[in-house]
Amino acid sequence: MSINLLNLAPGKLSATDLQAITNLGVTVLNPTGLTPAQFDSVDIVFGWNGDVIDQLLNSSQSNLKWIQLTSAGIDYLPLKRLAEHHIMVSNVSGAYSQPIAESVIAFILFYTRDLSALLTAKQNHSWLDKNELATHMSLLKQQKVVIFGTGSIAQHIAKLLNGFGNFPVGINHSGHPADGFSSTETLTNAADVVKTADIIINTLPLTAETTDYFNADFFDLIQDLNIFISVGRGKSLDQTALLSAMRTNRVHRAALDVFQQEPVPADSPLWDQPNLIVSPHATPGIDGTNPIIFDILEKNLRQFIVDGTLATNQVDLQRGY
Amino acid sequence: MSINLLNLAPGKLSATDLQAITNLGVTVLNPTGLTPAQFDSVDIVFGWNGDVIDQLLNSSQSNLKWIQLTSAGIDYLPLKRLAEHHIMVSNVSGAYSQPIAESVIAFILFYTRDLSALLTAKQNHSWLDKNELATHMSLLKQQKVVIFGTGSIAQHIAKLLNGFGNFPVGINHSGHPADGFSSTETLTNAADVVKTADIIINTLPLTAETTDYFNADFFDLIQDLNIFISVGRGKSLDQTALLSAMRTNRVHRAALDVFQQEPVPADSPLWDQPNLIVSPHATPGIDGTNPIIFDILEKNLRQFIVDGTLATNQVDLQRGY
Repeated sequence: MSINLLNLAPGKLSATDLQAITNLGVTVLNPTGLTPAQFDSVDIVFGWNGDVIDQLLNSSQSNLKWIQLTSAGIDYLPLKRLAEHHIMVSNVSGAYSQPIAESVIAFILFYTRDLSALLTAKQNHSWLDKNELATHMSLLKQQKVVIFGTGSIAQHIAKLLNGFGNFPVGINHSGHPADGFSSTETLTNAADVVKTADIIINTLPLTAETTDYFNADFFDLIQDLNIFISVGRGKSLDQTALLSAMRTNRVHRAALDVFQQEPVPADSPLWDQPNLIVSPHATPGIDGTNPIIFDILEKNLRQFIVDGTLATNQVDLQRGY
Repeated sequence: MSINLLNLAPGKLSATDLQAITNLGVTVLNPTGLTPAQFDSVDIVFGWNGDVIDQLLNSSQSNLKWIQLTSAGIDYLPLKRLAEHHIMVSNVSGAYSQPIAESVIAFILFYTRDLSALLTAKQNHSWLDKNELATHMSLLKQQKVVIFGTGSIAQHIAKLLNGFGNFPVGINHSGHPADGFSSTETLTNAADVVKTADIIINTLPLTAETTDYFNADFFDLIQDLNIFISVGRGKSLDQTALLSAMRTNRVHRAALDVFQQEPVPADSPLWDQPNLIVSPHATPGIDGTNPIIFDILEKNLRQFIVDGTLATNQVDLQRGY
């Protein structure tokens, strides 16, 4: 029996990757110019395209069994409908954790080592007083870091922080312990650690509990936060509430990689807010193809060929992560 | 016998530090309004002031035995003259290693996570294409890092890099091994690793061998260097040779904290060179007093009180480091 994989994310696989898939006995199809029969013969989709998936789910002849996403987040999926059709879904949670974590540390050090002042001074050909500059500089181990979420991205961030002698507090649904964290707390019980934090990092997935979690009530807890960073999901943050906290000098610096609306409109007040980095959902980026995506696909393909199940990264369509 | 310490660096000690020194039975003197007899009674100088030290060395009645510097570098000292007067000198090598290392990682991640593009785009309210942005982004473990010097600063940098899965090559006088480095090479034998490096970091002390080490001949070895960073001593780098390598697109990015002339003059071409961070000898900075400086002073004071020797950080006045 031939296995057919429809490749909706060609940029995520190198020529070597494609050859390796073919060598497993899997036929790689491209979406353009497929006959209805070929379309129905698709067993596996690699990547995501709402229209194409819709068409597959609507066809009574469809053979579709498994979608291998190239994203970590899955909040854009029609979870219930996929569950009804008994489609297995796997994500690439973990593939982007290291580049995202390195961007988070880049944002933090940009602020704690005050690179911003150096860049402004350079435009003015101005040699700053180093003692004055030092009053805006700190060591990472002097900063109390609180990370919302303790999954793969959060653990990668925590591991990098540990190398700087910093052991963050983690916040998750149940308060269960996680690697690299000094302690953990539940989402509903986070107020006390939030009040005394220097740096807060959002890595939360989007669920009913986390939607709009960082709202005006949340920022009302904060009097003196050095840095707020969000690399989780845009809809967990009320951007207006953050801007209000920055304008009243309760949050001093921020870096956002995810937003309520993407792209951020040109007339958004975010662009003109000082000490706020706007990153275009770009922290997962690395030059070239990401080798971890292929690793996950290949592991799952090998297992799928054997018994039709997946080896890793299968999404729980009921829980939504 | 009372021991007198002349405090030439009052900003480096907190009130608590001063009390602790007094509790050891040491009298702390300030330089203003000292009588000649008090001046001659000084056993220890904390900090450095060329005129004051000169006066002490010129007095035949001077009691001076030990100078505890508040710097790591000692190339500004009259080494021979201090040796002739049998003055012990200790530095604070190590006290600034962690803040300097964090600044170095800040410079590297600023470039490898392409924060520069984000800052420019923000001014234009421009949402960049994340795939285009990714072509300028890399993971630290993908970068071949070569560190000149394997002393305290270099080891702190290496340790932070190790946390990112990066194991740098170290270059020192004799090629002896050092913690955190995958391998080491001698200064005279560095050409091969320089040619294939992605990131070069200068942490060298200033000696005859290292003066002007990074000159035109050095940069002639380089065809495609991602980042050059200098936090060692300014006089080891020929800035004109670096600028020439950047203008001919052989060195792509740089960050300098030390210079041939400080402050950097307003008409220096460094200010207008793109992708070059000018830091005003500020990477050691942290807000408040640096606790490690007092730790070194206190350890040495306790030993000095016992037997007139030093416990840590004594400088070899012959070797110059």
